Amino acid sequence: MALHMYNVRRIRGVIQNLKAAKRTFGTGPEPEKQVKQIAGSRVFSGIQPTGIPHLGNYLGAIKSWVTLQEQYSCVLYSIVDLHSITLPQDPAALRQNILDMTASLLACGIDPERSILFQQSQVSEHTELGWILGCFTSMPRLRHLPQWKMKSGKKNEGSVGLFTYPVLQSADILLYKSTHVPVGEDQVQHLELAQDTARIFNYKYGDFFPVPKPLLSETRKIKSLRDPTAKMSKSDPQKIASINITDTPDDIILKFRKAMTDFTSEVTFDPDGRPGVSNMVAIHAAVSGVTVDEVVRQSEGLDTAQYKQVVADAVIQTFSPIREEVERLRADPGYLKEVLSQGAEKAKELAIPVYRDVQRLIGFC
Amino acid sequence: MALHMYNVRRIRGVIQNLKAAKRTFGTGPEPEKQVKQIAGSRVFSGIQPTGIPHLGNYLGAIKSWVTLQEQYSCVLYSIVDLHSITLPQDPAALRQNILDMTASLLACGIDPERSILFQQSQVSEHTELGWILGCFTSMPRLRHLPQWKMKSGKKNEGSVGLFTYPVLQSADILLYKSTHVPVGEDQVQHLELAQDTARIFNYKYGDFFPVPKPLLSETRKIKSLRDPTAKMSKSDPQKIASINITDTPDDIILKFRKAMTDFTSEVTFDPDGRPGVSNMVAIHAAVSGVTVDEVVRQSEGLDTAQYKQVVADAVIQTFSPIREEVERLRADPGYLKEVLSQGAEKAKELAIPVYRDVQRLIGFC
Repeated sequence: MALHMYNVRRIRGVIQNLKAAKRTFGTGPEPEKQVKQIAGSRVFSGIQPTGIPHLGNYLGAIKSWVTLQEQYSCVLYSIVDLHSITLPQDPAALRQNILDMTASLLACGIDPERSILFQQSQVSEHTELGWILGCFTSMPRLRHLPQWKMKSGKKNEGSVGLFTYPVLQSADILLYKSTHVPVGEDQVQHLELAQDTARIFNYKYGDFFPVPKPLLSETRKIKSLRDPTAKMSKSDPQKIASINITDTPDDIILKFRKAMTDFTSEVTFDPDGRPGVSNMVAIHAAVSGVTVDEVVRQSEGLDTAQYKQVVADAVIQTFSPIREEVERLRADPGYLKEVLSQGAEKAKELAIPVYRDVQRLIGFC
Repeated sequence: MALHMYNVRRIRGVIQNLKAAKRTFGTGPEPEKQVKQIAGSRVFSGIQPTGIPHLGNYLGAIKSWVTLQEQYSCVLYSIVDLHSITLPQDPAALRQNILDMTASLLACGIDPERSILFQQSQVSEHTELGWILGCFTSMPRLRHLPQWKMKSGKKNEGSVGLFTYPVLQSADILLYKSTHVPVGEDQVQHLELAQDTARIFNYKYGDFFPVPKPLLSETRKIKSLRDPTAKMSKSDPQKIASINITDTPDDIILKFRKAMTDFTSEVTFDPDGRPGVSNMVAIHAAVSGVTVDEVVRQSEGLDTAQYKQVVADAVIQTFSPIREEVERLRADPGYLKEVLSQGAEKAKELAIPVYRDVQRLIGFC
């Protein structure tokens, strides 16, 4: 495998990615420069089954997923349980988290009639293609990915699953001949691996996989309410640092009231100088669908304490109907399982012919 | 995962393996101390789709597989095409090699009514379980396996597939809750990985996988006829160095005539001092089903040239009916495909309930 030749292409790829990153998909407040529904275009994205999502998950991914349903002719969203076990999981919690994530996605507006919503482990072709693609991926290529370096600790002693999961991610994407992949900034290098893998495969077997393009969200990463220099995270030991989409109005008001700000009372947007207030401005803009500048203009004259209430109200307005719908759906696990089962069937319908072609190209049949 | 605690168990495991290695399965000339057909016992073994097997493959594995069919209640033999692509393969050649290996196994006596003969890639649960087991296998555990060190070269730059294939091997075995695995000496460490993986899984999820026991062949490794210090190998550039099971009598006579021996004309068995003649004695004993001592006794008074003819005759006697049967079967690819397809169905029948249980234990359903 002439892997070295892909280094040049990879650099070009990074440049192309940066250009493509200019695209938005309607989460920002700009007049939507929407990608038209293109017949044959396919969007794939995955989300870990972490249970009930928090505000960061909602604004960073789920909200855009809802919009993408209207823009693309074929959209697949996978609850990536196979990825989740690269770190230890309690089985009962994982089982519940898969259903909670399903309920949450539906409540946020993912429509199983317009999107294929499914559980990764229920479509065997993911690991099957993953194996094959692993045979076209060099070890050094994986060793340099930052997620492995970060998660495996100083001694590089994680599991084989943790090391190879970017290969499974490539398979997730390529299995559906996906053309577009919504990604967070921290996943750009993994998408580049999928792009390289598509190119390597195509070079060997002829033009087969589309080289998938990134759809980068313009929404700023939402930060912890207690430490606005860190990402909002489910694993934060301080429960008031993150807002779940099922938090009650009282919870939300309390968490914003306790959110870390500074000693300036004015509302301004200056992420480096004033990360706490700027995080709230970013949240406010994203949930309201207006620009950061507009938010700052509207908030003139308010002090930080008053502004916290305004942002809390905006979040409550967004999340109240979602919370009610999540509660309703969680009470009906049979329905949730049925949605996932039908989703897996539809995903398999797309996956089977692609994987069969791959098997033929490789020489398995 | 308390991986360290398995080091002690692993050392114990090696000792147990060495004891188990004393078992034979009827390839040797001793009165057969056969393992009884045990209800619930399952034998699994895999062979790479290298096309027509050579004498080393036949005596080292296939001959024993035929015997095992009679000794165990459930026997699975897999043509491991997923493993084969860890090194580059030409698709058309691979396709043909899978069929040729199938024809060869049938011709050698593998009976699809008594064994489950199937193509690994046609049973998706292999890669599915492989992924899961990879999440319970530490990176350092794989790095120290000798096959990776050997095949990846000095720079450790092989593919991810080449690095992780021992994990897929563990899945191959455990997927069927196999109790016994015929292995060559070079695969003992990989079986130990499967044993460790079973123990790690059982430790976490309760007693689920049997810890598979090795069945070590007593047949000596068959060496190259041109360099009796090296293994007989398909990839040997000297075509006369190895004998294929489909070689004609003339080919076989020629190859033995040109086999490297030494300047002593007597027939003795001394693998270190006289590797060439000893290799022929080992071949002779194995194909005739008598002991090495018996072979040496019978050959008293013969010089090396005469002895080469005797060994060639014994091999011809074994391979002539096999060659004819291979030719007959190769002419009917439809039948071979049907055998593999029925085998895959039967394998799936065993694999599905095991994998479903694994999914439940993990928390996927």
